[in-house]
Amino acid sequence: MNRKSAIGIFDSGLGGLTVMSAVTKLLPKENIIYFGDTAHVPYGSKSNKVVTGFALAISKFLVKHDVKLIIVACNTASAFSLADLKKKIKVPVIGVITAGSAMAVKNTKNKRVAVIGTEGTIKSGAYLKEIKKQNKSVKVFSQACPLFVPLVEEGWFDAKITKDIIKEYLTEILKKKTDTIILGCTHYPLLKKSIQKVIGGNVEIIDSAIAIANEVKNLLHDKNIENDAKQGRHVFYVSDCPEKFEKLGSIFFGKKIKNVKKVELEK
Amino acid sequence: MNRKSAIGIFDSGLGGLTVMSAVTKLLPKENIIYFGDTAHVPYGSKSNKVVTGFALAISKFLVKHDVKLIIVACNTASAFSLADLKKKIKVPVIGVITAGSAMAVKNTKNKRVAVIGTEGTIKSGAYLKEIKKQNKSVKVFSQACPLFVPLVEEGWFDAKITKDIIKEYLTEILKKKTDTIILGCTHYPLLKKSIQKVIGGNVEIIDSAIAIANEVKNLLHDKNIENDAKQGRHVFYVSDCPEKFEKLGSIFFGKKIKNVKKVELEK
Repeated sequence: MNRKSAIGIFDSGLGGLTVMSAVTKLLPKENIIYFGDTAHVPYGSKSNKVVTGFALAISKFLVKHDVKLIIVACNTASAFSLADLKKKIKVPVIGVITAGSAMAVKNTKNKRVAVIGTEGTIKSGAYLKEIKKQNKSVKVFSQACPLFVPLVEEGWFDAKITKDIIKEYLTEILKKKTDTIILGCTHYPLLKKSIQKVIGGNVEIIDSAIAIANEVKNLLHDKNIENDAKQGRHVFYVSDCPEKFEKLGSIFFGKKIKNVKKVELEK
Repeated sequence: MNRKSAIGIFDSGLGGLTVMSAVTKLLPKENIIYFGDTAHVPYGSKSNKVVTGFALAISKFLVKHDVKLIIVACNTASAFSLADLKKKIKVPVIGVITAGSAMAVKNTKNKRVAVIGTEGTIKSGAYLKEIKKQNKSVKVFSQACPLFVPLVEEGWFDAKITKDIIKEYLTEILKKKTDTIILGCTHYPLLKKSIQKVIGGNVEIIDSAIAIANEVKNLLHDKNIENDAKQGRHVFYVSDCPEKFEKLGSIFFGKKIKNVKKVELEK
């Protein structure tokens, strides 16, 4: 592991590319290896044990590729598997939940924060625990929004149907008068504009992708392992359907994705 | 394999329970083993090779449990894997696509049939091929409806949002003036009433679950392997989250599901 080593980023599928996009904007010199576990997507509806098994196999793959740091760019895997990964993987592992929580705690004035995410993330209570760890006096309200991921994957970012579904999910949360809402799923930044329209301008939306990019920058600086290349290289691996990943991935990444390689992971 | 042997039914998750429900209604004396591959759900967005790998592992598990027949109660796996399973599995294997197609071909008067299903099923063109094989003169129109499965799993069977989404997906299909529409996904029977409201009474909806139950009855009769018990036993296995399967499964099965066992499949 040295400064030229890549940053490893993984997610169950495409969503983590919003995290990678934020990281590349802040750290354009870094080499990055992305792994999308498209054979097992989505993680949100699966159990702790199964998701942690996938997360460990992917992390081992990334370590074999000599990464200097692993970002768990998937909220479900961060919720379920981060503690296990930190124990078993020899490079630093950071997850979206700690970063998103810190940003929300810093932002909230009235100490009322909402979290939205997949069923797995919300049921795990991981954001609640993390926010309470950071500041006991913050009240946390949460809502699972299972239809948001398929809506994003369908490309219906600001259709009327999408806004109706956002309203349906967020009505109860809005009654709680939170001033901050965490997008607790890496797909959700693509619905950010529609969500903002529904909830109005007085509620601040926290995008964990931006939060974690800042955390990575600080960590690399503290450890003095920032890359000094002119332009970092980006490599993409998936466990299934590389063509589909190339096609849809660009929407999440914000620019064209090429040469996605399919690999089979050891169990 | 004898008449007391069970019928094996598998699906990527819960959806196949609509098939099991139809089979138990028609054949209440049969023992049935159901396998829901909840660790890998959904199949609809995954590749042929990955889905066929799952389907083979499950079929081997069912054969070990001495089934006399396997129903592939998943449209994606039927589209991708049926030919492979027929070659490699020693008991008869039947899929929902052949049965649903036959029922549609029999039903259509104007020789115009629509098929709706997951992305995987529709892209495979399996219904188109099967219908054309059965009757070359039938025109087939198809539409992938990726939001239907999460809508069903959310329990929004007849919400206004659901009808809006059905309209969005079916507008183009309706212009084709088909008189028959195949529900090419085992989740869709739970949206049948809402779909019928949107498309009107002049289009007949074909439920593959009912079609395949009839096919199974004929096959058992022809081979003289019908069970003669008073009441068949029903056993349920899943690859993840048995509690969730018990809770949601009853909606698909139409009655309470208990004692769901979690197993890990050999690769």
